[in-house]
Amino acid sequence: MSLAALESSIDYTFKKPALLEQALTHRSHGAKHNERLEFLGDSVLNVAVSALLFTHYGSLDEGDLSRVRANLVKQASLADIAQKLDLSRYLRLGEGELKSGGFRRPSILADTFEAVLAAVFLDGGFEAAKHVIESLYVPILASVDPLTLGKDAKTLLQEFLQSRKLALPIYTVIATHGAAHSQQFEVECSVPILDLKLVAAGSSRRAAEQSAAKLTLEAALAANPAPAKKRASRARKTTQLTLPVAVAQELK
Amino acid sequence: MSLAALESSIDYTFKKPALLEQALTHRSHGAKHNERLEFLGDSVLNVAVSALLFTHYGSLDEGDLSRVRANLVKQASLADIAQKLDLSRYLRLGEGELKSGGFRRPSILADTFEAVLAAVFLDGGFEAAKHVIESLYVPILASVDPLTLGKDAKTLLQEFLQSRKLALPIYTVIATHGAAHSQQFEVECSVPILDLKLVAAGSSRRAAEQSAAKLTLEAALAANPAPAKKRASRARKTTQLTLPVAVAQELK
Repeated sequence: MSLAALESSIDYTFKKPALLEQALTHRSHGAKHNERLEFLGDSVLNVAVSALLFTHYGSLDEGDLSRVRANLVKQASLADIAQKLDLSRYLRLGEGELKSGGFRRPSILADTFEAVLAAVFLDGGFEAAKHVIESLYVPILASVDPLTLGKDAKTLLQEFLQSRKLALPIYTVIATHGAAHSQQFEVECSVPILDLKLVAAGSSRRAAEQSAAKLTLEAALAANPAPAKKRASRARKTTQLTLPVAVAQELK
Repeated sequence: MSLAALESSIDYTFKKPALLEQALTHRSHGAKHNERLEFLGDSVLNVAVSALLFTHYGSLDEGDLSRVRANLVKQASLADIAQKLDLSRYLRLGEGELKSGGFRRPSILADTFEAVLAAVFLDGGFEAAKHVIESLYVPILASVDPLTLGKDAKTLLQEFLQSRKLALPIYTVIATHGAAHSQQFEVECSVPILDLKLVAAGSSRRAAEQSAAKLTLEAALAANPAPAKKRASRARKTTQLTLPVAVAQELK
């Protein structure tokens, strides 16, 4: 696999292509693998994203900045970027990992992406790595809402209600099913003043509460409570909304 | 307090001194405080220390690198550096924090140090911040052993015994004292082949085990078991050794 296409998609050409090759080499493949690079790349990514958020969101406090950063650099986010870059095509894996589909594993993709960033940093310096990272993250920032990104459904529902000076939701376990080791919980989330009562199930009380909060928030958003109270029965029929976007619009 | 002395001790002169002033301002003092800078400075410190360790310890794997880094950037280490820089003399605190001795608090000192690094980064770029951080950390690296830094006493004792192909230590709770909420545990750590049995107390079983392991390792090192077995009674009389240094010498 020629590396020129990868260099083109990250907009960086290596002076020492061996660094990029090492970054793409999983430890299952050989001795000169990418784990030390991953250690370095993690911190390179972190500082570049931090600097980007620091300037991009001049009025966010450090708590919000930390939350947004954690979400942007978590494994799933990095694996997404790695997939956009088609990193799996360039990955060098050992036999076993190849057969077990290691090139699709999010942890391997995320680690390899970090290693590639370290390779750019070592090859071209901090500004080169920063440029690569910013090119990848600026489009992502355009699509996230920093006020909601990475918050869980219960928090979002609570903030939604507080912003309208409405009472907090009430969570009630209404049933448990199954044996102790495989219990299912049914939790109802109710917001009396909006006439909302939604039920969701989960393998823990916490998970069921989160699911119920998500349904309730979607219903509350769809019912658009600001002008008048609507019936929950109608809200229940609304289709699923993508949470962060919908909430972003509501909170603005 | 003139900032020139501080600039001199970090070997950096600000183009925009207002950035340094903000870095030295605790949130208790005023609106333009240092918390956002601390968010950024944390990641600047992390990448500079990572890069330093990456080149300085070319043969350490990423697990060891992470352990050493964690130890070098933990709050207590940063507060130490802040004290060497006399940061508390320049700190701007609110009335309450001033009275309660906030200028001595490790968390405030560590956070302020990170904020100062961010100020250098914003004022002079990555290379300037890297230079400041390396000047502070290169002398520290000279005095640490990367094979032992940040490892707990049980781990160090285990590695010491394994390196001599000796059987692992045996930990036994020999007594508990006090009521449930304020229990004291006495744990014996024994290494039969070295004729060592040392007892230590702690407020948890884990804490007592660590203390007993520390005593046992000190005794084992002092007894210098390589040539011949010595009696534990003699080892017990040895004075306390500073662990990392002593172990470092033994492992080399």
